[in-house]
Amino acid sequence: MSPINRQIVLASRPKGEVTPANFRLVEAPLAALADGQVRVRNHFLSLDPYMRGRMNESKSYAASQPLDEVMIGGTVGEVVESRNANFAVGDKVVGMGGWQEYQTVDATQRGVLNKVDTTHIPLSAYLGSVGMPGVTAWYGLMKIINVKAGETVVVSAASGAVGSVVGQLAKARGARAVGLAGGADKCRYVVEELGFDACIDYKQHPDVKSLSAALKAECPQGIDGYFENVGGMILDAVLLRANAFSRIAMCGMISGYDGQPIPMAAPQLILVNRMKVEGFIVSEHMDVWPEALKELGTMVATGKLKFRESIAEGIAAAPEAFIGLLKGRNFGKQLVKLV
Amino acid sequence: MSPINRQIVLASRPKGEVTPANFRLVEAPLAALADGQVRVRNHFLSLDPYMRGRMNESKSYAASQPLDEVMIGGTVGEVVESRNANFAVGDKVVGMGGWQEYQTVDATQRGVLNKVDTTHIPLSAYLGSVGMPGVTAWYGLMKIINVKAGETVVVSAASGAVGSVVGQLAKARGARAVGLAGGADKCRYVVEELGFDACIDYKQHPDVKSLSAALKAECPQGIDGYFENVGGMILDAVLLRANAFSRIAMCGMISGYDGQPIPMAAPQLILVNRMKVEGFIVSEHMDVWPEALKELGTMVATGKLKFRESIAEGIAAAPEAFIGLLKGRNFGKQLVKLV
Repeated sequence: MSPINRQIVLASRPKGEVTPANFRLVEAPLAALADGQVRVRNHFLSLDPYMRGRMNESKSYAASQPLDEVMIGGTVGEVVESRNANFAVGDKVVGMGGWQEYQTVDATQRGVLNKVDTTHIPLSAYLGSVGMPGVTAWYGLMKIINVKAGETVVVSAASGAVGSVVGQLAKARGARAVGLAGGADKCRYVVEELGFDACIDYKQHPDVKSLSAALKAECPQGIDGYFENVGGMILDAVLLRANAFSRIAMCGMISGYDGQPIPMAAPQLILVNRMKVEGFIVSEHMDVWPEALKELGTMVATGKLKFRESIAEGIAAAPEAFIGLLKGRNFGKQLVKLV
Repeated sequence: MSPINRQIVLASRPKGEVTPANFRLVEAPLAALADGQVRVRNHFLSLDPYMRGRMNESKSYAASQPLDEVMIGGTVGEVVESRNANFAVGDKVVGMGGWQEYQTVDATQRGVLNKVDTTHIPLSAYLGSVGMPGVTAWYGLMKIINVKAGETVVVSAASGAVGSVVGQLAKARGARAVGLAGGADKCRYVVEELGFDACIDYKQHPDVKSLSAALKAECPQGIDGYFENVGGMILDAVLLRANAFSRIAMCGMISGYDGQPIPMAAPQLILVNRMKVEGFIVSEHMDVWPEALKELGTMVATGKLKFRESIAEGIAAAPEAFIGLLKGRNFGKQLVKLV
């Protein structure tokens, strides 16, 4: 084992867009384990939009990422050393290992590290469709949108880790699934590979009117549920096509993450259409995780839930990969491969 | 009985602000009753903000008011003639009699006309605190905001028919009630007569920053529930003080009724604070009316729910009184007295 752990820490808080200078690669020695501790070699690091919020000092939807500390993040890997009876060398585990090559953690507390079975599910999927993004999709669709057969569900960032699951779950529930994604390649993938009924390339629509017309064409019965990952013009266009008693699950608003104003043009439509708009963070709903992960895991293992990954190589590549994710340069779940 | 029924019909749809020219006073003869019909002399006509939406052709939160037909509206009155065994001359009734002196209605359908007891509750209250506005307040506060003791509830248009009930019910549930109203007189009334903890005169605050600071001062623990009657800058200011897991009941957005843009500046706060924002129309929730009316009626009869009325005299005064309501010139429930 390398005696050195390479880590990415937050060097400074972004002013507007995130830049590579906001991060710093550091090397730390690996200390001997204490009783109860486990050392994990991280195989994959998950990069997710929520991390952008953590980089701000101001009130966000979670605690700020402290400066000069290892960036927060989900990881999957393999136990390489253990002083904890519940974990053996060779165990595959998922945890919040952060942006680093090794995680050293007191695993006596339940839930800090969870063993996973890679017989039928690839290890990396536990960071995507069978992990936090998958459960995020499941919660928003089942608990907020509460989708019913025959309804129409729209999801933005449809080719992404969350959006791709939203649409496939909606289809599995008998709903019409319409995606929004950036570019013809992503849209083709969303329809042909993921099985959505339609996907709109928002980059082809310069204004709300145009995008709203495209939504009308693809959602002839109107929109009953919208899973929001982006915000801004997309949200405005969706509101213009929302049905009475429609629901919006607000999961992310990546278009405003750098502080751009993203006003909602016509909030009165929430009243006119008697809508419900609800924001959520999946980590505050741990009670649904077992049920959600069971369904998602079965779907992935049986090939009914498809996903795609963008994989950057090596911990040093994490900052640029994260910046690309915020700009929509990824295609599917963004990971950093560390082994 | 006068053989003539004076009525106000919708003459034209408003372009922007409502004007008297949008209405026309007509006289119609009273025909003989058919079997099952009841004739009611309307004593009071209710004027309510929702009527503004009905005047538009475009999609609103209910069917459009047809041109050249009697304006829709709630009424209380006395049965003056009956060919229906369930109603006798002298019965006091509440119904949707419209902007006219007499209502002639087939009362065989349940709910079209409801008898009311005026022993302990004044007849006009059935158009206010013990009627549609009261149930509106009750539904939004109980079913959407779901207020709990110790929480802080804010309501706009606090001296009005709906807002005044919201705050008094919130107090009865052990919450802190903070109102927003226009002018020192209304604010004094809201605190001194209605018993709110505080009331902010929004006219003293030219911008969101100033209003938000005032809300911070009056809501030191933040805002857990907001009952929205106005929209625009007030909504933006409230969002800046909203707590995690707070709820907004969207009942009306009178500031945008004439078609003014009323964007929501920072919808991302719904996500950041994991809020729920829900629009509703009380007539779509008839199942709660008996429970709500029972509580509201008891509170009025025992003096625990106070209200105030602005009373215009005569059917011809209805248009100007309605225009005044939309501009906030009323003080409490706006009625037109017809007898």
